[in-house]
Parts: sequence; structure tokens; C-alpha cells
Amino acid sequence: MPDPARLDRLRAAVEANFAAQTAFLQELVRFPSLRGREAPLQDWFARQMAARGYAVDRYTLADVPLEGHGKAAPMVDVDPAGSVQVVATRRAREAGGRSLIVQGHIDVVPEGPAAMWTHPPYAGTVRDGWLYGRGANDMKAGVSAMVFAMDAIRDAGLTPAGDIHLQTVTEEESTGNGALSTLLRGYRADACLIPEPTAGTITRAHTGTLWFRLRVRGVPVHVAVADTGTNAILSALHLVTALQRFTEALNELAKADPSFGAMRNPIKFNPGIIRGGDWASSTPAWCEVDCRIGLTPSMEVDEVRRGVERAVEAARAGDAFLSNNPPEVSWHGFLADGYVLEPGSEAERVLAAAHAAAFGAPMEERLSTAVNDTRYYGRYYATPALCYGPGGEGNHGFDERTNLDLLRKTTLSMAAFIADWCGVEEG
Amino acid sequence: MPDPARLDRLRAAVEANFAAQTAFLQELVRFPSLRGREAPLQDWFARQMAARGYAVDRYTLADVPLEGHGKAAPMVDVDPAGSVQVVATRRAREAGGRSLIVQGHIDVVPEGPAAMWTHPPYAGTVRDGWLYGRGANDMKAGVSAMVFAMDAIRDAGLTPAGDIHLQTVTEEESTGNGALSTLLRGYRADACLIPEPTAGTITRAHTGTLWFRLRVRGVPVHVAVADTGTNAILSALHLVTALQRFTEALNELAKADPSFGAMRNPIKFNPGIIRGGDWASSTPAWCEVDCRIGLTPSMEVDEVRRGVERAVEAARAGDAFLSNNPPEVSWHGFLADGYVLEPGSEAERVLAAAHAAAFGAPMEERLSTAVNDTRYYGRYYATPALCYGPGGEGNHGFDERTNLDLLRKTTLSMAAFIADWCGVEEG
Repeated sequence: MPDPARLDRLRAAVEANFAAQTAFLQELVRFPSLRGREAPLQDWFARQMAARGYAVDRYTLADVPLEGHGKAAPMVDVDPAGSVQVVATRRAREAGGRSLIVQGHIDVVPEGPAAMWTHPPYAGTVRDGWLYGRGANDMKAGVSAMVFAMDAIRDAGLTPAGDIHLQTVTEEESTGNGALSTLLRGYRADACLIPEPTAGTITRAHTGTLWFRLRVRGVPVHVAVADTGTNAILSALHLVTALQRFTEALNELAKADPSFGAMRNPIKFNPGIIRGGDWASSTPAWCEVDCRIGLTPSMEVDEVRRGVERAVEAARAGDAFLSNNPPEVSWHGFLADGYVLEPGSEAERVLAAAHAAAFGAPMEERLSTAVNDTRYYGRYYATPALCYGPGGEGNHGFDERTNLDLLRKTTLSMAAFIADWCGVEEG
Repeated sequence: MPDPARLDRLRAAVEANFAAQTAFLQELVRFPSLRGREAPLQDWFARQMAARGYAVDRYTLADVPLEGHGKAAPMVDVDPAGSVQVVATRRAREAGGRSLIVQGHIDVVPEGPAAMWTHPPYAGTVRDGWLYGRGANDMKAGVSAMVFAMDAIRDAGLTPAGDIHLQTVTEEESTGNGALSTLLRGYRADACLIPEPTAGTITRAHTGTLWFRLRVRGVPVHVAVADTGTNAILSALHLVTALQRFTEALNELAKADPSFGAMRNPIKFNPGIIRGGDWASSTPAWCEVDCRIGLTPSMEVDEVRRGVERAVEAARAGDAFLSNNPPEVSWHGFLADGYVLEPGSEAERVLAAAHAAAFGAPMEERLSTAVNDTRYYGRYYATPALCYGPGGEGNHGFDERTNLDLLRKTTLSMAAFIADWCGVEEG
């Protein structure tokens, strides 16, 4: 339980800095840090952290041995050498206190048609207690919280007694290679906190995610010869339908998962991008569909991959085009396991106490049907990895926004957690 | 029946010029005269015809009153002022002989992935009696035939006794506005020949064609809220399936058509282009599909349009996304009637005789389930319009090629037809 007097000092500091934090978050949102275009934000962020006195390590994904690592995911159409990572370290005066990694991703997903936004997606507009924009909630709010939680500790006249690494990474929305790179770069700690927008809940488990690209291509039968099965677009739709049935079967199997068994259909299948053909009056000879499918933490990535490939292969039989032109399935991004945060860790206990003190209510838990970066720290490097942060709406959609009151409260609970986990010294 | 001695003189001239004709066709194929990019070819063609002594009228679609004409079709994403037409006229010494329009389109459809071509699509490669390339068959071969049929008449020492207009037009593959423009520009004749690649058959009838764009767009239900009906791509597929059922119903009605009643499924529906979404892990909020559907000559364009719109509207009911987000149907190209060449015209009789003399076999007829430009001359301007020309393979597909032996023979039959239809004078 946080010391009440210290909590009051932290709260006063969070309050005093909150206008600056909001402006900082607006700056973050104004960077259109889409995949492959994150570097300007990272450069700016590195300067911000250096100015605060952190030791800053700025490197790219080309600087770490991702290739050959079993949990690295393929990167297609993006240059690892352009994918900048930042680790800002505040070392304790003496080794001994518990260390901590606080990590946030700064890549955002495409904003879609600008006309569908009430406020421009990269303006950082503030209205009625919400801050709007692509990435405002997922998860630049959390990134602002990790910076200003540390600022609050400093401004409260306190110094953490353990080493702290603030990490901003890329690739969270596509591969997870940014998070993996920090571990390959050598950063370790006694716990990890990732302030994804969980609205003040702790993520007990998340599903895994696979990305794959269906590619239908071949010389079509002439439209005069057959009435069906001559068209790559229609054949791609046939594959999508087959994958919907495969997803239903996977959700049956998911009923045996210890974490997700009680949830209705935790496995989501999403055909997210489609493109095919080039002329209304030509039979399209190709079609590509970029897809995402989930898996429970108890399913193996390779097993689900093979299942997808088998489902596509089986669907060929019923389609005239595909039987002559085998479709390709390529794995072009996420090959992500799910992750379960085992209950009972000291790190979670300390966070729950900090949350209760800051919110005046117990920390609840959630299950997430979307992936986050905690799996790297928690599943592969035996580091308790807590996914907990602010909250809002519209992730990956239109009018994404983060709630500023929740941001203020989680910034305080994070400050209290850091202080209690690492310990603090006066001055 | 062509005069045998005159036919021999024409044959000798066609033979003598055939290497030049092949080179001319290669030049035509080397222009990538895709929609909106036809002008360089037309400029070159206009110079070629001027050098031969034709009176050349070069104008654009912005120079004629297309707007407001009931049979003009909408042009989307292309500038009428950039769409160049050429009419090359050879006037008879005295008015009196029967006049003739010979028309060919020089627009081509996109070539698709270059890797799927054995020979580059715009190289004009000649191999084993075939000339390869996008547009080689559809219908630059026919354009070369109309030029070299006239050259053969000249080189045989003959002069046509009727006015002849050689027209090269655009927009045949998308709207038909190029053909319509020649009529709005004022060109008329006693007959029209369009040497589309019919492989030496006469086209008894062709179906009509409509183009439309389905546009699905809206704020999706969150993937956590519903398992189906949240995805614009899946909803677009739902509409495509509904339109396949509508096409089946249309093919039932087509059984009553006098020309196409005996053909199995003469109405073809083709979703030709699809695009939607921008991220594998975001629920796509939009999807567009460019479609083509046919109609028999006895169906009304407006009736089939309303049928498409009703089918889309009815499909909304079964789809969670669409019931909240009405799809749009827009008409962005062809609104083309079908056309029947009534048997028994003098023009067809003269062509059949010329064909029989050149090929040593009777001219057969065909039904076409694709549109061509004859409808403008034949259906709206009461000009017998003959669709007859060379032949090959791969129109709108890969490895399109025209057969050079067929090209040589149809160039001769066209020369004989022109000579017999217009009459010729020595010298």
C-alpha cells in the first residue's frame, strides 16, 4: 500500500504537470507515426528524454540479431534499418533496488478516410475531457503516462532506488519485433509494465495473432467457357468463406482454453485489406487479401498456421479457378503467441495496491482478444509483464480518443507503482 | 461476288504490303494506349493518314456535345479533353457511290502483371505467325486492316467511288463515347464496318453492358460486439453474392430473347476490381467493387439498372453492417444497349461475298456476349453496322495475340468489300 503522504505528493506533482502532459501527448499525436514512418517521433522523443537527463540508447532493428531468433516475425515492405527504437535509462544511485522496464509502442495503424473523422486524425484536438487522434489512445496516452509518472516522482522530490528503462518501440501493430529488439539489445529488469489502454484494468491474458496474405493468381478460364470459378476475386471470396468456417472450428477448440474457455468466440478472423483486378470488364486474374486470425494462449502458432494452410488447400477442391491455380498463403507479419499473466506475482500485487490507492477502487482484470507486447518479457524472458494503462475508444477505428481523467489517474497509479516497486529515496 | 481479276490484284497488293502492315501493327501495339493515355497513338495515326493524303479531322470528346445526349455514358476519372479522336476521310471524285465508315478503337484495357506475359505486353513481338501484345488482337489488328485494305485498293491502281471515313476512336472499352462522338461530329455513311477480332465471322448480335461501382462505407460495429456483419469487405462480398443470384434471374429472363434465348447464360456478371481496408488488424470500414453486367438486346438499360439497385437494396436486410450503413451503387461507365444486325441487308450480302471470295468458304455468324461500337451506327443512326474482322486469342487476358494469316485474309476480304460496296474506278 503506497504511503498516503507520498501519494499526496505524487498526486500534486501529476496535477501540476498535467497541462504539460496533455501538450506532450498532443505532440506525440501530431507525428503520423505509421509503420515505417516512426523515426521522426522517435528522434524527437530521444531528445526529450536526453533533456530530462536520461541515458538514451537510440538504435534500429538492423542493429540487433533479429534474423534467426525463433520469435522474430517476418517484416515485409518495411526496412528494419528505418525502424528506430529508443531506450531511456535512469540508473539508481546504488544497485540493489528492484529494476523496472516501462514500455510503450509509438507505431499507429492507418487512419482510413480523413472524411470519416470528426476531428483531424493527427491534430491532437482536445474536447470535453477527451484527446482525439490516431494513436491518442493506442498507445501514446500510455507513453505520456510513463514519462510523466517519472516526472512526478522527480517533482515530488523522490529518486527511484532501482534502475528504470523507459522504452518506446515500433512494430507492435505488425510483428512485435520492436519489443523483441529491446531484449536482444540486452535490457532486462525484475518486472515490466506496458501501459496499453486497458482503462485501469490488468490484462490477465491475451490471445495471439497471426497475419497472412492470401494470393490468388493465375490465367483465368475464359468467361465464355464457364460461368463460375473463373474469377480471382470470387475465388478469394471463396477462401475467405472457408476461413470463416475454420475460425468457427477454432472457436470450438478454444472452449478448452483455461483463460478464454468461457468467452464466446475469442478467436477473431479479420480480412483487413483486399485488392484485385484492374478493369471492370476484364476477368480479374489476381486478388490478394491480408488477413489476421487469433489463437488462444494454449494453442501453438505452428499448429494454427498449418490449420490455415490446410483450410485453404481444402477449399481449392470446390473452386474451378483455384483447382487450376493453387493459391499462396504467405506469413507476412505477426506470428504471435498468446500470453497469460500468472496471478500472484509481487509485481502485480504492488500495482494493484497502487491502483486501489489512486482510484479508490480495486483493480479489475480483463481478457484481451488482441495481442500486446507483454508476451516477450513474460513468456520468453521470465519477467512478470503487466499490461495496465489509461483508456478511451476507437482504437483502429475512427474518432479514436483517450479520456484525460483516466489518463491523469493512471499516471498517478503508475507513479505510485514505480515508487513502491523500485523504492524511492528522498531528494 | 468480287471480280476475280480485281481480287487477284487486291491480293497481290495486300501480300506486297503485308510486311509493312505487320510493322504498322507493331507500332500501334507499342503505344500503351490505356484509357486516358490514347493521345500519343492518335497523334501518330493522324500523321500517318495525313501522309497518305487523307483529310484528317482530329478532335477531342470535349469538342462534341456529349452531355445531355441520351446515349452518352458517364466518364469518371478521365478528362474528355484528353480523349483524342481521328477521322481520316478519302472523298470520292464525284458524289454518287455508296459511302462507308470503317471504324476501330485504339484504347486497350490494362495488361495486368507483366510477369504473367510470355512476351512483354507492349513490345509487338512476332513469333510463329502470331503478333503478341495488349491490344494486338483487340483491336489494333483490325485498325491495321482498315488502313492496309485501303492501301491495297490504291496500290492495285483503283480509286473508290464513294466517300470513305476511317475512324479511330477511344472509350470503346469503357463507355462507347468515342463512337458516339463521330456521329455527333456529323459523320454519316451508307454502311459501317468495325473490324473487331471476330475471326472472319459476322456478329449477328451482341449483348449490352453496364458498369457500376459498389461502395460500402461506414463505421463498423466493434469486432468485440458482433462476430459477423462488422466488416466492409465481408459486406461487399455479401453484395457480390446477391448480384450473382440476380444474374441467375436475369439469365432466366434472357431465355425469351430472340437472339440469345438458346444460349446458356448469355448474361455475364463480373466483379472486375476490388479494393478495401488498409490494415490486416483493423476492421475495414470501406470496400469498393467495380462491376460489369450484361443484358440482352431485348432488355432495357434502365430496367436492368433498377434491377441491380433493387438487388443491392434487398441484400442489406441480411447484413448487420449494411443495415446500418447503406451501400452506394454508382454508374461510372457503360450504359450500353445490345444490338442485333438484322439479316438481309445489302451491306452484309456484299461483305459475305467478299469473304467467300477471299477465304474460299462462307462467312459464318456469331453471337457476342461482349459489347462493341456497332450499336451506335446500327441502333441509333439506322446505318447497317457490320462487326467483322481478324482473329486471335487472349483479349483482356495474358499473352493476347493476333493471327497474322487471319489478318492477311481479312485485310483482303475488307479490301474486296470496300471495292464492291463503294465501287472503284481504275486509276
